[in-house]
Amino acid sequence: MSYNLLKGKKGLIFGALNEHSIAWKVAERAVEEGAEIILTNTAVSIRMGTINDLAKKCNTIVVPADATSVVDLENLIDKSMEHFGGKFDFILHSIGMSPNVRKGKTYDDLDYDFLSKTLDISAVSFHKVIQVARKKDAINDWGSIVALSYIAAQRTLYGYNDMADAKALLESIARSFGYIYGREKNVRINTISQSPTPTTAGSGVLGLGDLMDFSESMSPLGNATASDCADYVLTLFSDLTRMVTMQNLLHDGGFSSMGMSLKAMKTYEKGLALQFEDVKSNGSSSTDK
Amino acid sequence: MSYNLLKGKKGLIFGALNEHSIAWKVAERAVEEGAEIILTNTAVSIRMGTINDLAKKCNTIVVPADATSVVDLENLIDKSMEHFGGKFDFILHSIGMSPNVRKGKTYDDLDYDFLSKTLDISAVSFHKVIQVARKKDAINDWGSIVALSYIAAQRTLYGYNDMADAKALLESIARSFGYIYGREKNVRINTISQSPTPTTAGSGVLGLGDLMDFSESMSPLGNATASDCADYVLTLFSDLTRMVTMQNLLHDGGFSSMGMSLKAMKTYEKGLALQFEDVKSNGSSSTDK
Amino acid sequence: MSYNLLKGKKGLIFGALNEHSIAWKVAERAVEEGAEIILTNTAVSIRMGTINDLAKKCNTIVVPADATSVVDLENLIDKSMEHFGGKFDFILHSIGMSPNVRKGKTYDDLDYDFLSKTLDISAVSFHKVIQVARKKDAINDWGSIVALSYIAAQRTLYGYNDMADAKALLESIARSFGYIYGREKNVRINTISQSPTPTTAGSGVLGLGDLMDFSESMSPLGNATASDCADYVLTLFSDLTRMVTMQNLLHDGGFSSMGMSLKAMKTYEKGLALQFEDVKSNGSSSTDK
Amino acid sequence: MSYNLLKGKKGLIFGALNEHSIAWKVAERAVEEGAEIILTNTAVSIRMGTINDLAKKCNTIVVPADATSVVDLENLIDKSMEHFGGKFDFILHSIGMSPNVRKGKTYDDLDYDFLSKTLDISAVSFHKVIQVARKKDAINDWGSIVALSYIAAQRTLYGYNDMADAKALLESIARSFGYIYGREKNVRINTISQSPTPTTAGSGVLGLGDLMDFSESMSPLGNATASDCADYVLTLFSDLTRMVTMQNLLHDGGFSSMGMSLKAMKTYEKGLALQFEDVKSNGSSSTDK
Repeated sequence: MSYNLLKGKKGLIFGALNEHSIAWKVAERAVEEGAEIILTNTAVSIRMGTINDLAKKCNTIVVPADATSVVDLENLIDKSMEHFGGKFDFILHSIGMSPNVRKGKTYDDLDYDFLSKTLDISAVSFHKVIQVARKKDAINDWGSIVALSYIAAQRTLYGYNDMADAKALLESIARSFGYIYGREKNVRINTISQSPTPTTAGSGVLGLGDLMDFSESMSPLGNATASDCADYVLTLFSDLTRMVTMQNLLHDGGFSSMGMSLKAMKTYEKGLALQFEDVKSNGSSSTDK
Repeated sequence: MSYNLLKGKKGLIFGALNEHSIAWKVAERAVEEGAEIILTNTAVSIRMGTINDLAKKCNTIVVPADATSVVDLENLIDKSMEHFGGKFDFILHSIGMSPNVRKGKTYDDLDYDFLSKTLDISAVSFHKVIQVARKKDAINDWGSIVALSYIAAQRTLYGYNDMADAKALLESIARSFGYIYGREKNVRINTISQSPTPTTAGSGVLGLGDLMDFSESMSPLGNATASDCADYVLTLFSDLTRMVTMQNLLHDGGFSSMGMSLKAMKTYEKGLALQFEDVKSNGSSSTDK
Repeated sequence: MSYNLLKGKKGLIFGALNEHSIAWKVAERAVEEGAEIILTNTAVSIRMGTINDLAKKCNTIVVPADATSVVDLENLIDKSMEHFGGKFDFILHSIGMSPNVRKGKTYDDLDYDFLSKTLDISAVSFHKVIQVARKKDAINDWGSIVALSYIAAQRTLYGYNDMADAKALLESIARSFGYIYGREKNVRINTISQSPTPTTAGSGVLGLGDLMDFSESMSPLGNATASDCADYVLTLFSDLTRMVTMQNLLHDGGFSSMGMSLKAMKTYEKGLALQFEDVKSNGSSSTDK
Repeated sequence: MSYNLLKGKKGLIFGALNEHSIAWKVAERAVEEGAEIILTNTAVSIRMGTINDLAKKCNTIVVPADATSVVDLENLIDKSMEHFGGKFDFILHSIGMSPNVRKGKTYDDLDYDFLSKTLDISAVSFHKVIQVARKKDAINDWGSIVALSYIAAQRTLYGYNDMADAKALLESIARSFGYIYGREKNVRINTISQSPTPTTAGSGVLGLGDLMDFSESMSPLGNATASDCADYVLTLFSDLTRMVTMQNLLHDGGFSSMGMSLKAMKTYEKGLALQFEDVKSNGSSSTDK
């Protein structure tokens, strides 16, 4: 169903790899809602994924860019303004990667060059995108910029590693730049803190499957999917949310406001009962920390 | 402009007094977006205000109800289901009043019967509305319930008095009931923390004018108006935000994420300069706490 | 071990029932640290519990008072000032009770008279204590007032019911009154959000045992005990924390900043595995929400 | 006055430049409270400041180290363990610097090499210190690690620039590592969010004087000084706060929980009145954003 919610709007979407990507769903839905878009990703991701299929479907182009490279971003913004014939209205930043996670370096044994890359790719790139766009005056007044985050920015999750710190930095950049771009051009900048989502990027994280089950059980509405997220992003790109800025918006079926649900507790209690039996028969606890 | 965002949806709106009311704007906009609505307010407010004009405009009825009375609410829900021919989809709670504020009782000299009324009218009424609606199974699956709040729930503002505590209670009720209604029927419950707004209710608060100027100067996008708020409420009633629940959503032009803006600081500095001059000429500070 | 941290200080302690009470531990430790104290509780609690033993141990008196009664509180403050020969320095509020929880009324079927009592006993009583103390100018400059809270004020926990809302209200009162008492007399007001604790009051809550295990597994340091809490309260009564006010301080072994620990996940995964086996053998899920 | 609160404890203090430094006050007070300490700072800061005087006063040594250099930190931890004859108990991280601020690069024109340095010096250095200490098993069980932060991590302040993002990253690192070091060795890690303080480091920030006045007026207890902060740090190093971890603790006289104080509003209103006069006489507003 389409509401023409983004009729006449134009935007730039970072981070669509394949049909599982949240950015992919946002692109599809934005076009359904009447927007014109441009897609971008790194050259490697373009080769590995299927973004060109998405471009065809959305009747648009893909401009390769490494979001950590200011030169690439300048070219991207120039190309976008050329393609759109002027300024545009929205940006989605859906980029995150941790070489430490990929290489199996745990948080108490971080490689600091890797950490620097994690921060640059997953957070500082957001600043670079905005700074370049602003210097080129690429965004219309009352435009909207969104980046995707995760609750690890506030609460530590086993195995999420230095991505937690990157997300905290990302959310801070949204606030810091939201003030400046807001006071000047009424451009709003927000992050969406999304449920764990089985994207290609997400699947790199340790034990995501079981975590998703826990998260699903804790959340009264269950986990939000990539499609749900796309719908929510649309509202933030629309004119109906023009006064929302510098916020981190939880899109998680209620997870963030839960301490313990009956459903999650029932599963936990089963594990607990089993554990006590183990202790009885073995004479010692089968869990470590 | 209409997107038909609420096409086919039906809802109940509490708290429209006159055209300055946020609830009034929500009612108008909801109807523009294709919803059917029912209006309600206390008998006194119906007499004092102009809600009947709104009902005419929205082609609907007004059902009088005191939201602190379970009996009234039962009648209201029954009448609403009768009018709609069944269940409905959304509720707006825009109700708040402090007898302590009205009677000039300061926070260090509260009348506890008044406090009890403040809490009952401004917060517990929200629980009552939801409990009655749920018992009568009045809300469709994936329905949406919204109440209006204010940042005083998190940060103390001079003169806001026991309304701050009422708002904190209100936001807690949204979380507590959001869990239960969510897990059962996927009904979501959120609060919107709105900029100070010059409604008839708001004008009772001490020195609201100057506070609004401060808030305007601090917020990169300025204060959100009642109309802006109505637009935002629509997104929460729509199907595009189905996974957002148990949240307090800041709709404030960025105010809540600001520590100090250049603009507010310039005004403050002028006052400060003047003050130092006063001190010099008078030999003592002209401010007290 | 004693540091004489509260040497020369005097204070009033609400809510010691028996040796499991947090207030009991605070009383003992405060006296060890050189403070003089007065104990208070309701007449019923005095009869049911063993507070008189504590009074003997602490070489002090028990003044009966219902903290919801302004008359009782006035008498209590008068008696305290008489006993101390003047003003005193600190107050601990450790009071909470929900008739809805006691009578088994669930959150979607609250009795509103009971809710009113829950709020009055567990939250408004804190305002009453402070208002009475302030009117009688009973607290020395730079005094310290603490109330005990729980994370349910921010995150919903199955079964915690209307106590969650009461705790949210309690924390708001600490902020609201903290501003006023701070600007006037530099008296600070804070809440401590304590781990679930197996006190007599706490044991009324549904399934506390398993919740405590989950909380223990999630928290890197485990649950904070009543004794740990007493130590923390002492720091807040001491002169070393004079600039901390209007805060809700998490004393929970890290629980509040955790999204998921390895230890809790291992137990959860065991329950999950068991569940899948049940599904396989029974042809349907053994969990409901 | 001394309580012997840190009797028998040993610790490492980063960041004392001169007598205005918070780290300086912490060092003095820690020794007064019975601790043995070691001081460290960069070679440049040692030359520029007067840390050697402090060392003399505290009867200890200064070990030069650049906290961004793992090699330096390894040497520092080795030297410390040598000096102490084994493990130690606490660490204070009081380090922050932004080349962007120093060189006058505004937030919308950041130099990214400078940003990388800001993050490395002000936040990642905290991770490095902890990782090196942990690898060398340098901290006793139930040890305590504290870093100093500022509310800019949550709320944007004009002129604070990329230091805001660095503080958000710093606070995230405290949580992430707090989980790991806590579950293994019960070592707790927290940040203190301190009032603006007129240290040598702080004085680099734009318009700090007026901001401090605003902050002072907003806070019911006024701004916390460096000495106040030292007292608070002591409580976190002591055994009385063993279950507090992964927290960001506001030490700010109440500032963070204030929306608007009467005192700050009076000054603001004076500036406002002046502004309206300007508008009347000039025909246009004298403020820009």
